[in-house]
Amino acid sequence: MANIAPSRRLRRTPFSKGVEAAGIGGYTVYNHMLLPAYFESPEADYRHLKQHVQVWDVACERQVEIRGPDAGKLIQWLTPRDLRSMMPGQCLYLPVVDETGGMLNDPVAVKLSEERFWISIADSDLLLWVKALANAYRMEVLVDEPDVSPLAVQGPKADDLMARVFGDDIRSVKFFRYGWFTFEGRDLLIARSGYSKQGGFEIYVEGWDLGMPLWDALFKAGEDLNVRAGCPNGAERIEGGLLSYGNDMTRENTPHECGLGRFCNTETAIGCIGRDALLRVAKDGPVRQIRAIEIKNRVPHCDEAWPIMDKDKIVGQVTSAAWSPDHDCTVSIGMVRMTHWDPGTELKINTPEGKFDGVVRDSFWA
Amino acid sequence: MANIAPSRRLRRTPFSKGVEAAGIGGYTVYNHMLLPAYFESPEADYRHLKQHVQVWDVACERQVEIRGPDAGKLIQWLTPRDLRSMMPGQCLYLPVVDETGGMLNDPVAVKLSEERFWISIADSDLLLWVKALANAYRMEVLVDEPDVSPLAVQGPKADDLMARVFGDDIRSVKFFRYGWFTFEGRDLLIARSGYSKQGGFEIYVEGWDLGMPLWDALFKAGEDLNVRAGCPNGAERIEGGLLSYGNDMTRENTPHECGLGRFCNTETAIGCIGRDALLRVAKDGPVRQIRAIEIKNRVPHCDEAWPIMDKDKIVGQVTSAAWSPDHDCTVSIGMVRMTHWDPGTELKINTPEGKFDGVVRDSFWA
Repeated sequence: MANIAPSRRLRRTPFSKGVEAAGIGGYTVYNHMLLPAYFESPEADYRHLKQHVQVWDVACERQVEIRGPDAGKLIQWLTPRDLRSMMPGQCLYLPVVDETGGMLNDPVAVKLSEERFWISIADSDLLLWVKALANAYRMEVLVDEPDVSPLAVQGPKADDLMARVFGDDIRSVKFFRYGWFTFEGRDLLIARSGYSKQGGFEIYVEGWDLGMPLWDALFKAGEDLNVRAGCPNGAERIEGGLLSYGNDMTRENTPHECGLGRFCNTETAIGCIGRDALLRVAKDGPVRQIRAIEIKNRVPHCDEAWPIMDKDKIVGQVTSAAWSPDHDCTVSIGMVRMTHWDPGTELKINTPEGKFDGVVRDSFWA
Repeated sequence: MANIAPSRRLRRTPFSKGVEAAGIGGYTVYNHMLLPAYFESPEADYRHLKQHVQVWDVACERQVEIRGPDAGKLIQWLTPRDLRSMMPGQCLYLPVVDETGGMLNDPVAVKLSEERFWISIADSDLLLWVKALANAYRMEVLVDEPDVSPLAVQGPKADDLMARVFGDDIRSVKFFRYGWFTFEGRDLLIARSGYSKQGGFEIYVEGWDLGMPLWDALFKAGEDLNVRAGCPNGAERIEGGLLSYGNDMTRENTPHECGLGRFCNTETAIGCIGRDALLRVAKDGPVRQIRAIEIKNRVPHCDEAWPIMDKDKIVGQVTSAAWSPDHDCTVSIGMVRMTHWDPGTELKINTPEGKFDGVVRDSFWA
């Protein structure tokens, strides 16, 4: 692996000093910002995440803020998910699509009030899409990237650590709901959410200056809980079926191909750009879809789509893969054609280091 | 420096195999794609670039293709530069702005015909901005990212190397003009352009499969010219005053602040989004502007904006800096307030490793 060359363009975060002091091993780049990829090693990080509690610098989940009388209308235009029943206090996972129904992003939207939303984005400049629409349709909204940087606390001991810093009320926050909690006299939005299946919270840190004081407070409070710096872990998130935009899906794919049909209420999502295209997909169903694929062997780093072959014919591709210590196999995510997507189907996967055998599973691991 | 963690989301390029075989030292990420940052070392690369010829994998300069009867109208909406006299065969550097006149990108536009353009973008998802506008205004255009990956050939021996592969006609291509040349039976658009001041070409490689054959052909033809793999070089581009989007300018800045006023014909750029905002700036002038700043000492890696101080007051920021072997100083780019932007003004620059002295220059170095 090569070094990552530093520049302002790969933005540091409010927590970067903490990340570096904790001994960052590898970085990736996400929304033009540094995102830790591993600390000790992917496998050591994985084991620790499943047993203890980690603090994750996910500031790269930048927010698109939409504020104003037309905010509710504009956000509905972005997605085939029907948002009419969404309440303040709630977070929702949203497929965001273009006019052909192609995925532009898969953010979590946070409803602050009837006229104010944060969209916590995956790795594409969704801000430009939303700003252009707001401008073209002369909507009564402000659209911008606010000074908000999520910090995640993930792992089985997350509730205990968070209660020490924010009080026991944090324990009663429900999944994909949020509450307001005080730190150093400032109100912070904290949601029960995060990019792992181990449970935990995402703290929407409003104000760059609060970053390191909060980071330090969490580590101080969690010493006896074996708290460590961590980050989204490839094997853990694949086991849990958590998709990654840019890896497992791109503009090429509809939400239905990504297995996100359950988040599409295309008939009633009035105004959704891409609705016409998706109505057809919703009716006929996709011809390829995301599947969990088990591979017995250890495979190379998956840094490009690997073709899935049936003799000379490409029938899909693997887009994420990682060695799972708990399942003693490589867990992977692929997009597979209908002819080969049934559970138990045996697949040949072409990697730069040769062909590997894979099997379609009926569900993800976790 | 930490490692860069591989994933499909950080897209490989048609030339990645060549880059790796040449011994890549450091990568950066640009438009969700790998961009080499140095090979031997930034200083060794710099010396070689100024004496010989290098082949650069700049596939990350992705294209936004606009095609159809409304293509000319749509591209004019993106920029305050008046495009009425742009001819097929021509390339133009375009500031692209939002409704407030803030920079969204600073691409080079290539006019293929009256109804077809490629916009060779800097590091932001301009595709989303253009697609949203095209859709909202129901323009008669197709907007997409085609399978086109630029490969640059830069350095004083660039003409000689290119003539060996494409024939002597390549020598007559003028600056920011292009021609069509044949390689392995396929037509390739080749422009005299590139992100260095050493001269050279950018080959718009259409078709992923052509990447490595072309890479190999250039290296084979240039053995006795001491051809090497290279990449945009920090010190060389700063000396030449070549700005970097995301480093030296962001949405916060107008083109005028970036010293790009000469590319703005705001009065006649009818339809340009942001025209109203920029008409005011064009009249009053900016209150801060890009300057070349010389620093005697070696400074740390510039991975965040460094405040420029006058006692306790912030009067600007340095956004790019690199050691220049030829000038025996650190060359840097900063945004400086009007009160401190005159040539010869002495500045104090706050870096994580302490304060450094800088002086405003009257022009860039090269």
